[in-house]
Amino acid sequence: MTAHPRAGDCIEALCAKFDRNTVLVGEDIPARNMADTSFLPRLRPLAVVRPDTPQGVADALAICSAHGVAVVPQGGMTGLAGGAHPIEGAIALSLERLQGIEEIDRAAATMTVRAGTPLEVIQKVADDAGFFIPLDLGARGSCAIGGNLGTNAGGNRVIRYGMAREMVLGIEVALADGTLMTSLNKMIKNNAGFDLKQLFIGSEGTLGVITRTVLRLHPQPGCTMAALCGVDDYESVVKLLSGARRGLGPLLSAFEVMWPDYWHAATVRVPGVRRPVEGDHAFYVLVEAQGLDEKLDGERFQTWLESQFETGLIADAAIAQSKADALAFWRTRDAAGEFQTVLGPHCAFDIGLPVAAMDDFAQACRSRLEAEVPGCLSVYYGHIGDGNLHIVALVEGAATQPSSRINRIVYETVRAFGGTVSAEHGIGTIKKPYLSFSRSPEELALMATIKKALDPHNILNPGKVIDLKAEAAS
Amino acid sequence: MTAHPRAGDCIEALCAKFDRNTVLVGEDIPARNMADTSFLPRLRPLAVVRPDTPQGVADALAICSAHGVAVVPQGGMTGLAGGAHPIEGAIALSLERLQGIEEIDRAAATMTVRAGTPLEVIQKVADDAGFFIPLDLGARGSCAIGGNLGTNAGGNRVIRYGMAREMVLGIEVALADGTLMTSLNKMIKNNAGFDLKQLFIGSEGTLGVITRTVLRLHPQPGCTMAALCGVDDYESVVKLLSGARRGLGPLLSAFEVMWPDYWHAATVRVPGVRRPVEGDHAFYVLVEAQGLDEKLDGERFQTWLESQFETGLIADAAIAQSKADALAFWRTRDAAGEFQTVLGPHCAFDIGLPVAAMDDFAQACRSRLEAEVPGCLSVYYGHIGDGNLHIVALVEGAATQPSSRINRIVYETVRAFGGTVSAEHGIGTIKKPYLSFSRSPEELALMATIKKALDPHNILNPGKVIDLKAEAAS
Repeated sequence: MTAHPRAGDCIEALCAKFDRNTVLVGEDIPARNMADTSFLPRLRPLAVVRPDTPQGVADALAICSAHGVAVVPQGGMTGLAGGAHPIEGAIALSLERLQGIEEIDRAAATMTVRAGTPLEVIQKVADDAGFFIPLDLGARGSCAIGGNLGTNAGGNRVIRYGMAREMVLGIEVALADGTLMTSLNKMIKNNAGFDLKQLFIGSEGTLGVITRTVLRLHPQPGCTMAALCGVDDYESVVKLLSGARRGLGPLLSAFEVMWPDYWHAATVRVPGVRRPVEGDHAFYVLVEAQGLDEKLDGERFQTWLESQFETGLIADAAIAQSKADALAFWRTRDAAGEFQTVLGPHCAFDIGLPVAAMDDFAQACRSRLEAEVPGCLSVYYGHIGDGNLHIVALVEGAATQPSSRINRIVYETVRAFGGTVSAEHGIGTIKKPYLSFSRSPEELALMATIKKALDPHNILNPGKVIDLKAEAAS
Repeated sequence: MTAHPRAGDCIEALCAKFDRNTVLVGEDIPARNMADTSFLPRLRPLAVVRPDTPQGVADALAICSAHGVAVVPQGGMTGLAGGAHPIEGAIALSLERLQGIEEIDRAAATMTVRAGTPLEVIQKVADDAGFFIPLDLGARGSCAIGGNLGTNAGGNRVIRYGMAREMVLGIEVALADGTLMTSLNKMIKNNAGFDLKQLFIGSEGTLGVITRTVLRLHPQPGCTMAALCGVDDYESVVKLLSGARRGLGPLLSAFEVMWPDYWHAATVRVPGVRRPVEGDHAFYVLVEAQGLDEKLDGERFQTWLESQFETGLIADAAIAQSKADALAFWRTRDAAGEFQTVLGPHCAFDIGLPVAAMDDFAQACRSRLEAEVPGCLSVYYGHIGDGNLHIVALVEGAATQPSSRINRIVYETVRAFGGTVSAEHGIGTIKKPYLSFSRSPEELALMATIKKALDPHNILNPGKVIDLKAEAAS
């Protein structure tokens, strides 16, 4: 794809419509708009348009649409799959100036926010108002809520609160033709026709550009309990998960499992990570519950943990006695964020699998990597309660990583186990070659039908998520 | 619409494909397939096709599609908005023989079921396996899970567990052209492309016919606490709701509010309903929480209730001391099911409103009904925590109810208050004239775009939910 023949006219029309701070071209284009966090090579978009009103976003789309120029929606640029990465010949439509909380409705327990608002700002405002936004991820300081919705972000507390999708009541979207569709519903029950917001959540800007949203607010948790457990076999891990669901019910807020290879990398290789439990175990499980009342729920958590110990599911366990303890437990899990520094360049995976099959998968994947990629180290950890596994794989010390071989082996194993190539990061461009590993031809065809219906001229993030036949033929 | 010219050929093709028990015509068509529960006049479909496999449903659709004959999907026939009601010149595609539980996956906590399975059967099987299906509604014995999903059913425990939509992980759908799209995902996190199931949930059979689904299983609640409170003003009701969200957190499983006119009708007119609290109050609130442990959570509930009493939010309250008490409390709320017998023919409404505006709405609606429909009694009650209000309105003793006048007044008031004309019952045909009261032209246009993309020949439940321009022109 090269610059569109009418691109010059399009940029001219954008400059005529918006002020100089809204349309950036040439050398004025900041580095932030040239790449997301997917490690794809930097690319300068034709122009960056960054309106500061929802109608401005719609107007920009109308102009691009009229000129047949493609648009890449951009938020906080923290996506890992390439969804917001520039495309050659396309304009970047950035939500970075569409920020702010418009309303908190205490009776409805909702918050109306603009799409470019960073997640951390939203968390903070909710907290100040006495509420809780359960969505949380490492990039909280820079990711924008529009991108969180566009990728249907997950995070650590999905087991209790669901994905980003479950936190949304209303949405406003600029459609491909520049129509601004405002659907800022605040009601939990609303069955007046199709639930249109569902189309845009998780579609990575390929069907429309989210401009505002109504989020559900939750009550603040009164207390948090955490334990780190050593478990001796995978069957016991699965039983412990069932036991946590039953014994902690809706208080269960995280169930993170770390395989021994991961545990070693996190606690030996990453500096400053201590081991809350000693000895060698087949699995390390971090269980967290959010309660209402320190006394009642603390007692409940302790009693539950003891019962799991007595039945022999847990070989060893440490229970957090303080916030510092809980943080230290989470450090073992968050250490993955430092693998880039400690282990060097590597391939990182976000996949999903049926819970029961996870360990078989890990064994199969590790064996194939070791056999087919000499010197390959792979470590396994994840949000097991949600069926979400992360993998970090690399050949330590290699000048360049054999990424394509590693990718293929991992995704082929995912396919063999009936898993998903993306649990929470989306598809973007990075995972697009593997989408058919997890989706049937019928599913892919229906996705294409929807894309063509909502974006008939294929100007919204073209080439991301799915390939259209027409495009493939060109 | 009259019988389609190729209808005869279509039925012939269906008879050639299926056995005599699968295709019913003429006098063999049972009464159950001639009407749902919307009180629309009975209508005999051209034929009833009732395949007993998912592929059979797809094959039937392929045949109807090839002949251009419209199809009305039918489940338990318990819908109140006309979604499953026959259409003249159309074939009824009934899921009644596509029944059964295919799998319970204990590790994933999922259940795979066929669309025609009655909800009560699913609840029972889950219970026997030590799990809990939170979806529950009055029609549980006869409604089918496919219809529950097709209408995105609600019920009493939405405040805790969400709508039917939130309970679904995977889906299988027969598309308009006879494609069987199998997407029986079991993973909580799965962002591999668009989340296609969302299209079909709540679209009332206008976009596809659900054949199977994967449901999330929840742990069984360990105990249930309930209180019936008298509250003296609406501001206190809203504060009590906020207090319940904070104080009971994720245990809060119902927050039902009854206005005095409803309370009078339920406890004076319906035989055998006792008043758990005496005296006259402005509102009666049923609060229910599901806990894990009788001792801990019973104490928590009692302490919370006392604190609300001490702050003056509650004027009077009864707390259930037994299952019988809790049932007696729910009897006041379930008495609405007997209004048909006790009050006679009436108009019943399922609407949604912003929580803060509910009492203002009730006052405005009642005033207009009394002023414009002489002798009109209207009573108000609902799932306030979800923004869902029910209304029963009638002129007692009238030979025929002035339904269209009552409908118009209620829905116009909903529109004025920014509410939704359907909270949990769907649109069907009954509410279609009022859909534009709650949806903007942009929303309606996008619904039509989706409908046309997925059902280009408009054979799936045509004329339900939305009108297409092409159809309106014919």
